[in-house]
Amino acid sequence: MKRLSVAQYTEGILANQRTTLARAITLIESDLASDRALAEEVLEACLPHSGNSRRIGVAGPPGAGKSTFLDAIGMHLIEEQDENLAVLSIDPSSPISGGSILGDKTRMERLAAEPRAFLRPSPSRGHLGGVARRTREAILLLEAAGYRNVFIETVGVGQSEVTLRSMTDFFLLLLIPGAGDELQGMKRGILEMTDLVAVNKADGDNRARAEQARQAYAFGLHLFRPAQDGWQPRTIACSALSGENIGSIWQIIREHEAQQTASGAKAERRRQQSLDWMRSQLQDQLESEFRRHPAVAAALPSLEREVREGHVSPSAAARRLLALFHRNPT
Amino acid sequence: MKRLSVAQYTEGILANQRTTLARAITLIESDLASDRALAEEVLEACLPHSGNSRRIGVAGPPGAGKSTFLDAIGMHLIEEQDENLAVLSIDPSSPISGGSILGDKTRMERLAAEPRAFLRPSPSRGHLGGVARRTREAILLLEAAGYRNVFIETVGVGQSEVTLRSMTDFFLLLLIPGAGDELQGMKRGILEMTDLVAVNKADGDNRARAEQARQAYAFGLHLFRPAQDGWQPRTIACSALSGENIGSIWQIIREHEAQQTASGAKAERRRQQSLDWMRSQLQDQLESEFRRHPAVAAALPSLEREVREGHVSPSAAARRLLALFHRNPT
Repeated sequence: MKRLSVAQYTEGILANQRTTLARAITLIESDLASDRALAEEVLEACLPHSGNSRRIGVAGPPGAGKSTFLDAIGMHLIEEQDENLAVLSIDPSSPISGGSILGDKTRMERLAAEPRAFLRPSPSRGHLGGVARRTREAILLLEAAGYRNVFIETVGVGQSEVTLRSMTDFFLLLLIPGAGDELQGMKRGILEMTDLVAVNKADGDNRARAEQARQAYAFGLHLFRPAQDGWQPRTIACSALSGENIGSIWQIIREHEAQQTASGAKAERRRQQSLDWMRSQLQDQLESEFRRHPAVAAALPSLEREVREGHVSPSAAARRLLALFHRNPT
Repeated sequence: MKRLSVAQYTEGILANQRTTLARAITLIESDLASDRALAEEVLEACLPHSGNSRRIGVAGPPGAGKSTFLDAIGMHLIEEQDENLAVLSIDPSSPISGGSILGDKTRMERLAAEPRAFLRPSPSRGHLGGVARRTREAILLLEAAGYRNVFIETVGVGQSEVTLRSMTDFFLLLLIPGAGDELQGMKRGILEMTDLVAVNKADGDNRARAEQARQAYAFGLHLFRPAQDGWQPRTIACSALSGENIGSIWQIIREHEAQQTASGAKAERRRQQSLDWMRSQLQDQLESEFRRHPAVAAALPSLEREVREGHVSPSAAARRLLALFHRNPT
């Protein structure tokens, strides 16, 4: 990868030059130490220009129609609301490694041709912590480039939706009727994070079933998901295909924003997210140093086995590993 | 506290001498370094004799009738099933510090008088991690003393129920009808951990309302809680006061055990719990060393403030703190 200077990256991003923005995102996705140092400088320079977007998480199982939905709501924003937007797609479970941009772009046909939309699939390589870091940093760059709405999309079947909730202002769960009554394979706890359940594909013969599904989710939310920060989660049936209720979903997102801004909950959540993010990076780093320590690395597999088999207590094993870590400093 | 030798503790525990068992639990509750070393030795000696109980978590909001329920199911075990049992109560949110044994014993009147039951409130001092460690270790001692059923009770309104789930085989959520349709102030995600929702106080005028509440929870569970490890969570209405369905709850616990034992899920869960526990202790310890480091401790408050206010990026702050940690080793 040919690198630019910090000033070139920063000026290009602030001027919303798409090529520079794309290259900067590629830079922050790199794990090379020299790239990291440069990336940190670019991020620091962009930081004062960030924070001004709506950060909207969209999770849903494969087949729920996330791409069609994002295409529809994105076009609604551009054509009806005079807005611009970026879409980041996270798929940590995908076996495909990086660079399937074409595949993602064609999934959102109309948006892909729009100058006021910026689409970016996340590279799927790397563990979830890495994906989380790259996504957070990409949001900052997109905001510095002037995108007022950043959608982050994930199949919520792993831990990715927890990650997503920790970096967004609004969390939308997209489901479909008729895929069984259950949460369609979504991970535990996803409902706890949801601000809006949208039942997609409410079109043609599916309308009645979508409305039934919506009512069931509404009942479940009422039962199991008390209001948080003064927001009681909503439900809606919609059709990304026909466009039905896509505008209403946008109104709900705006209503949530107005309420959370007025109460101070939005600002407080973002402050807390920043702190949490710092702490999670510290924790990852400390643990990684610990695991890389030669004496620890040598002893860990057999101790883990003995703990699993019940021959050594977890406490005793932890104590031994810590002793190894401290006795032979690297 | 007068201490015994490792052999005295161990022999007393294995012979189920109640006084020695109680003193050993007090020993593991101590944070004194000398007590810890002794406690670790006692635990290591008891480890081969542990693991043979049903570990049953019981969570529920204040007023759900947990004590009456435990009294009822405990007496059922003793009188009808020829079993013995121990009850550990965790209440990390309680302001009362240690030693309120009398208060707890009188909450379970019949059990308190039973030689085949052992009741122990957890000391509420200390952070949750400390409570978790003490509870896990107390389970081991109780098992070594021959208790075949260990109930661990918590008000599930903090993080205590997550802790509880991580050390039990079966998780029972006790609720009551008529306290609103919602989860009665329980923390997010509690339903995801539940193997059985029991709606208590289904007696007298309350019977119909308890059954209605049970049906609502059944519907919600069906919708939002897919089977895990082959177990679809159940619901039941019961009365700890009249004894109705207390025997049926025990049958459900046994059915779960039979199924999870046959599938291997129980053994695998316990192995994974041991590993998770070792890792969580390592993580706690590493983080605590980091935070106690003088340079880190000095810089942390102002950096946290700057991160919250958006003046420094979380990544940059993490990097600076790690540099301080490594530059000036203690």
